[in-house]
Amino acid sequence: MTVAAIMTLDKIHAGIPLYQQIANHLILHIRRGTLPKGYRLPGSRQLAKQLGVQRGTVNAAYDELVIQGWVKAMPRSGFFVRNNLPDVSPQHWRQEDTEALPYPEKTAYGLQQMDHLQLPLIKGLPGLAFNDGFPDLRLAPVQALGSHLRSIMLKPVYRRLLSYGNVEGNDALRVELSQYLNETRGLNTTPAHIFITRGSQMGIFLLAQTILRPGDNVIVGQTNYHVANASFVHAGANLFRVPVDKQGIDVDAIAQLCAQQPVRAVYVTSHHHYPTTVTLGADRRINLLALARKYGFAIIEDDYHYDFHYDSNPILPLASADTDGHVAYIGSFSKCIAPAFRVGYIVAPPNLLQVMGRLRRIIDRQGDSLLEQAVADLLKEGEIQRHLKKVRKIYQDRRDAFCRRLHDVLGDAVVFDPPAGGLAVWAGFDPAISLPRVAARASKSGLYVSDGTVYNPPGINLNSARLGFAALAPEEMKQAIQILKESLQP
Amino acid sequence: MTVAAIMTLDKIHAGIPLYQQIANHLILHIRRGTLPKGYRLPGSRQLAKQLGVQRGTVNAAYDELVIQGWVKAMPRSGFFVRNNLPDVSPQHWRQEDTEALPYPEKTAYGLQQMDHLQLPLIKGLPGLAFNDGFPDLRLAPVQALGSHLRSIMLKPVYRRLLSYGNVEGNDALRVELSQYLNETRGLNTTPAHIFITRGSQMGIFLLAQTILRPGDNVIVGQTNYHVANASFVHAGANLFRVPVDKQGIDVDAIAQLCAQQPVRAVYVTSHHHYPTTVTLGADRRINLLALARKYGFAIIEDDYHYDFHYDSNPILPLASADTDGHVAYIGSFSKCIAPAFRVGYIVAPPNLLQVMGRLRRIIDRQGDSLLEQAVADLLKEGEIQRHLKKVRKIYQDRRDAFCRRLHDVLGDAVVFDPPAGGLAVWAGFDPAISLPRVAARASKSGLYVSDGTVYNPPGINLNSARLGFAALAPEEMKQAIQILKESLQP
Repeated sequence: MTVAAIMTLDKIHAGIPLYQQIANHLILHIRRGTLPKGYRLPGSRQLAKQLGVQRGTVNAAYDELVIQGWVKAMPRSGFFVRNNLPDVSPQHWRQEDTEALPYPEKTAYGLQQMDHLQLPLIKGLPGLAFNDGFPDLRLAPVQALGSHLRSIMLKPVYRRLLSYGNVEGNDALRVELSQYLNETRGLNTTPAHIFITRGSQMGIFLLAQTILRPGDNVIVGQTNYHVANASFVHAGANLFRVPVDKQGIDVDAIAQLCAQQPVRAVYVTSHHHYPTTVTLGADRRINLLALARKYGFAIIEDDYHYDFHYDSNPILPLASADTDGHVAYIGSFSKCIAPAFRVGYIVAPPNLLQVMGRLRRIIDRQGDSLLEQAVADLLKEGEIQRHLKKVRKIYQDRRDAFCRRLHDVLGDAVVFDPPAGGLAVWAGFDPAISLPRVAARASKSGLYVSDGTVYNPPGINLNSARLGFAALAPEEMKQAIQILKESLQP
Repeated sequence: MTVAAIMTLDKIHAGIPLYQQIANHLILHIRRGTLPKGYRLPGSRQLAKQLGVQRGTVNAAYDELVIQGWVKAMPRSGFFVRNNLPDVSPQHWRQEDTEALPYPEKTAYGLQQMDHLQLPLIKGLPGLAFNDGFPDLRLAPVQALGSHLRSIMLKPVYRRLLSYGNVEGNDALRVELSQYLNETRGLNTTPAHIFITRGSQMGIFLLAQTILRPGDNVIVGQTNYHVANASFVHAGANLFRVPVDKQGIDVDAIAQLCAQQPVRAVYVTSHHHYPTTVTLGADRRINLLALARKYGFAIIEDDYHYDFHYDSNPILPLASADTDGHVAYIGSFSKCIAPAFRVGYIVAPPNLLQVMGRLRRIIDRQGDSLLEQAVADLLKEGEIQRHLKKVRKIYQDRRDAFCRRLHDVLGDAVVFDPPAGGLAVWAGFDPAISLPRVAARASKSGLYVSDGTVYNPPGINLNSARLGFAALAPEEMKQAIQILKESLQP
């Protein structure tokens, strides 16, 4: 082994001078014992030639090693690894393998395995996909957002935003959002009721961690957002599942459960239920609030798709009628702007926001103040509102076209109700058709369809999947439905 | 009360049409019972006049209410709130106060109080401040970062980054970072060893949650980063504190503790100890690794200031000599770019990164893929490296000027060792001088100085504070030291 062989130099990255790279490599190998005490380094001319660098570069590296005390210069003999290393007692390393070792693949200590959090993760959907209900990225308002963001980064008036900020989020966004929610969702908030999160997922996590205690009972829909379920289980809660029908979660079943045992919280995706897309009926909302008052439980209202309702105006959230602090309301801009921009929010009484802030302080310190400022500006200018109006129309047209075509092409093989809102159709497949097999076949033809397992409650096969339509332009939609049809063939 | 009085219209926000705003207000008050069943709405001409809008706008709102079924149009009589409300049984609301109620201030259910997380939070430092060791925001490389970020947001080739991504972080950044760390810190990683976090705080949180179990013992410095302490306590750990001297954390004391009881993890801020700024000596690093091998504990190495070392080359991290998976290494770009850009990382064996990913999935789903891509580009182009070289020189000069002047002006009132690196001086005040009183006085003169309490271990008054110098230009530095001097007077 030559000394040159233990080095990989990067001659392009100008940021780290070559001599420094060489010195770093040599120090590493002296510390590891690959270059033992008393070892004579190759002459600078020879090493320079082997590495393809100037001789002066190697000399500078050697000088650095001498200055730092790793190497001794012996006139007319060369450079030798010192016996007394600076600040280092090398005996220990000598017992190691003498080759540069790769970084370890396994911890030497035990870990919390987080088995309850083994959630399926879809990485990189193909171009053609029935996704879970995502917006069309081609429509994302990135021009406006990008311009605002850049100008916020550069303007001295916003420089303070480059430093540490509030755990509760950017103040300007809290002001704008409070007003926006009051106008659009019948809330009666002030900025003190608003907490900015990284998407609705962080909203669920923070609420689960602050509201729930180990052993608490939480009620969810029989089929429910599996990541919310996992978040509650992670907080130590027991899940109770109640049926979901065409009016949403069954509130009478909730009443029965409450009569039998203490219930800490009920999780609802009121507009629209995930995964089935049904809207929670107004009478059920009223009854659920009455139950919350009677039994003192928290309602975690995840209104992630409120912005996308087509057939009539959306029903105001439960939070709009909560006068005594039973509802914690979660919303998000992820579906309105794009999933990558993790800006969501919680609306809740300030005493809850305060303890959430304590927890958030140790999770990620704060949100992205600059991005939040940009969203505030877009709200103030009505840009978000205009964007929503525009895409709502597009998605409504796509929903109509999709439902028509799905029915025309697939007939009775797939059962669904056209959703009144949201970005996906909840499609039940004929029991004779195995959805996992369909998904596997479609995948071979370049189309992603969920195999449906993620929506299944324990022990029940719904043989159903969410078919996201919003990201499919007309031609793509045709093609996707065609592939789906072919994948149904036995 | 007139109907007009219950509405606040926003005539500027073009996004929500005025008629919609009016309709929303009316629906809210019908639901709340403020406008009871059978109530006759004012004539459209009258309401339009009171609201200062066109009569057609009010008519459109009324039409909307009719379509949605809230209101009935009676020819020649006007519009009346219906007896049978759409989907709503209003009896319940009628028992409520009939005025629009403000959003509740308190939850009706109990909360986890998170008392152990009541950390002091400094909001909005004044212009003149001895901060905790933050970079100068005026030097932040926002031009380069802003351009990259914007172009990443707009380029079709990056559009996939607008969607959901990997929990472990942007792949391009993991590739660049692996190479960068191998070159600068003597690591031998592949991208599979890199996990991108939201700043080093999320690194600490994720490691605490995945490595620690309730009841585990964790060793920290007697004075230590208080947020790390809180993170470990939050994970259920018991803290054991060992002395810190001029060579860093006392490894012999760690050995003694390990001989007495099981130890799960040791937390070190190797380069440089927080808050005292001392560098962990090379011999101690070796001994600490040997102890980890002997006792099987994890070393959580938080190297948040590695980039800022002035007097000699920084000592390679413990992680660089970890051949069998004892070290989990935390780094961050927050100090190099700016605190608001929450991009940090963990280097650790892949089995640890995998369980961290499971947890991260339910916390915030993923990091900021676009920002991470921009940082990857800056690394690739050597921009980060050039920036560090530039600011390192500036901060070194500021450190020199600051230490000289602090000594010249304050004399023996303040004891400190010039730090070999980092962005703050650890200053011990003469016991005769009460630091909280100094801080209060300085505050009146517009200068922030920590009162030092945050650095105190339980029951010990160190009467010391970190005096961040890096963000102070020469004139500001003079002024700040002058105010500090005047604040010392009895």
